[in-house]
Amino acid sequence: MTNRIVARYWIETAHPLEKAAAVMAGEQSAGTFVRVPGETPELVERHGARVETITELSASDTPSLPGSKPPKGTLQPHYRRAEVVLSFPFENVGTSLTTLYTTVSGNLYELGQFSGLRLLDVDIPEEFAAVYPGPAFGIDGTRRLSGVYDRPLIGTIIKPSVGFSPEQTAEVVKTLCEAGLDFIKDDELQTNSPHSPLKDRVATVMRVIREYAEKTGKKVMYAFNISGDIDDMLRGHDLVLAHEGTCVMLNLLSVGLAAVSHMRRHAALPIHGHRAGWGALTRHPALGMDYSAAQKLFRLAGADHLHVNGLRNKFCESDESVMASARACTAPLFGGYQAMPVFSSGQWAGQAPDTFSALGHTDLIYLAGGGIMAHPGGIAAGCASIKQAWAAAMQGIPLDHYAAMHTELKQAIEMYGTL
Amino acid sequence: MTNRIVARYWIETAHPLEKAAAVMAGEQSAGTFVRVPGETPELVERHGARVETITELSASDTPSLPGSKPPKGTLQPHYRRAEVVLSFPFENVGTSLTTLYTTVSGNLYELGQFSGLRLLDVDIPEEFAAVYPGPAFGIDGTRRLSGVYDRPLIGTIIKPSVGFSPEQTAEVVKTLCEAGLDFIKDDELQTNSPHSPLKDRVATVMRVIREYAEKTGKKVMYAFNISGDIDDMLRGHDLVLAHEGTCVMLNLLSVGLAAVSHMRRHAALPIHGHRAGWGALTRHPALGMDYSAAQKLFRLAGADHLHVNGLRNKFCESDESVMASARACTAPLFGGYQAMPVFSSGQWAGQAPDTFSALGHTDLIYLAGGGIMAHPGGIAAGCASIKQAWAAAMQGIPLDHYAAMHTELKQAIEMYGTL
Repeated sequence: MTNRIVARYWIETAHPLEKAAAVMAGEQSAGTFVRVPGETPELVERHGARVETITELSASDTPSLPGSKPPKGTLQPHYRRAEVVLSFPFENVGTSLTTLYTTVSGNLYELGQFSGLRLLDVDIPEEFAAVYPGPAFGIDGTRRLSGVYDRPLIGTIIKPSVGFSPEQTAEVVKTLCEAGLDFIKDDELQTNSPHSPLKDRVATVMRVIREYAEKTGKKVMYAFNISGDIDDMLRGHDLVLAHEGTCVMLNLLSVGLAAVSHMRRHAALPIHGHRAGWGALTRHPALGMDYSAAQKLFRLAGADHLHVNGLRNKFCESDESVMASARACTAPLFGGYQAMPVFSSGQWAGQAPDTFSALGHTDLIYLAGGGIMAHPGGIAAGCASIKQAWAAAMQGIPLDHYAAMHTELKQAIEMYGTL
Repeated sequence: MTNRIVARYWIETAHPLEKAAAVMAGEQSAGTFVRVPGETPELVERHGARVETITELSASDTPSLPGSKPPKGTLQPHYRRAEVVLSFPFENVGTSLTTLYTTVSGNLYELGQFSGLRLLDVDIPEEFAAVYPGPAFGIDGTRRLSGVYDRPLIGTIIKPSVGFSPEQTAEVVKTLCEAGLDFIKDDELQTNSPHSPLKDRVATVMRVIREYAEKTGKKVMYAFNISGDIDDMLRGHDLVLAHEGTCVMLNLLSVGLAAVSHMRRHAALPIHGHRAGWGALTRHPALGMDYSAAQKLFRLAGADHLHVNGLRNKFCESDESVMASARACTAPLFGGYQAMPVFSSGQWAGQAPDTFSALGHTDLIYLAGGGIMAHPGGIAAGCASIKQAWAAAMQGIPLDHYAAMHTELKQAIEMYGTL
């Protein structure tokens, strides 16, 4: 007997909860709701999804999403909310990650019975581990390649997002290396473009990084955005490797799940996973999915680093959601498969204590743009201020106290603390 | 001077419209909103996205999506709605389909300035045609391979969705061939599973289809769902081809854009594109995107058939939206690139006249499950009833009149007409 795939959902429906849950189970498996020829009791027993639990929550007189169809003849529909746990036979899916995704999401979002449906989490049977090895580098490999231990990797993103030539990019990288950064990445918008061909960008940037490493012993990790078609990504990866680069970046949602797992099988470098486009799948609380579910699929596919936004970010996501995502990325899967969460968006020294206390460890990449670049003491001071903030956080010293002895942190608080 | 990429959005914001649109343009290009070092006027001129037009629409006192941040100090935010057209320099993107997708969607959905943001359409510069050949078969190739001209392909889906062995599937296929179907497909949930390995399913099903073709001259098109990891899909395609199959199916959103374009480069068979999971991206009108935008990306990637739901479907989508999607799939792109729309969900003979009059042609695949299987005269009668309905529609004869002379259609109207 193999394990079943278990998925947890938040639903809202004007139909009886048991009936609504049965529709979900039927739509996403052998069908138990509308009987068709050949659908024997044995087949349903073996291949039907099961409703494991239904936990009723609140209710509302207005539907969260438009387009749902209340039971016929209902004059004043009452929309009940519940958490529903379904389980799916492993036999239906096999060890295909893309079929797993189709099975736990798929047509569910379009079902007329629901005025809200969101995938909250998914438990994946261990059979998948035999096929998907997961992150090849993860936390340990990233620390080994970057030489940064016992604190977060402090990083930044090349800005402007697009527009720099390979030579201009390399110049900025030189400045960033000298400023003490551990990690630099391309913007998600910058891939292999006419004004900055990947070939030239890799060559010029890696020359700077290698030279700095030869001089100082510190090799800065640069995540080259190789996102594109499959063959372009394979070539891009090999190019980065040939120039002794230590990281490649993928726009996970743009290239897709099959592309990520394909790159993982080929890659000899950590995969930095950006989630551009994620908002469309998660922004409305009654639709789409939580990152708790999505990040598992991307970890299985092989992403080593996963973006999780940041505390007090410039986007719409709440701090609770950000921290839940970050914890999810490092929660072991099959006893391992940990990815490094990447904090980004509106980050400066100030969020270090709260991030550390909420997470309880420093296995993360902490990206700051303005929080480093706009520091009144310059880029090196900006980088130093963040390292100081993390040192304070790890020692349990309030930032203000620590700042009394550390000029760069003091300046950062003066600059950003009132924003 | 190359063309620019043009994208049209529906937005809702408590910020001044001009400012909000500038934030969109800045976030998705070189940035024009928050200036960073190196962002020269020349760079912004060359690489910045441009706000082309802003057309104010209605307004509301309540935000469509939670999490947005009104301007500081606003006590009673007023949420303005508008259609915004942005254009992006080709130089930023190059001819990468996945970067195009990141550029026109990406982080936009998460921006705190917006309580609603939806991508309505995208105009893609002709430069992409040199890299992405689009549907290899499209309408003409599908008609040639199926031998069906001057009317829709009438098809069905193997049900139960999952659970049949390859032998059981082949038995059903035999019945369906004899019933006069033109097209049969795997369910989106049925890929390469332990109880129905693709290898065995292709062999048993194609034996039946070949035998029927040898006997009658009619080769039914079967869309085998080869969705999975890249290497699995390549092997799956070659297997179908080796057994003289004429179609492969991909779950477009599960495998992703890079996988679809990779398969297109390899495929010697039409790609049947299923959009399971699409609801998450489109169900809320203030979030995600219209199919008018998404279908263009999938056509460029090379999908020959694209699911569009159906009139009076069992899901939440309105008839207007269904027909807009279907028209979009056949609207020429770069003077070609037409995909065949696939109508499915709750379809029977009854929707033929409205589908034909709204579309104006018969270049489509019309899938019915219960509308064929549950026909009181049996499967052959179910299939005949749909062909009769299309014949009536194409001749402009009301279904009721045509039914007077055609028993199967008459039975269908009696059976389904009152549902």
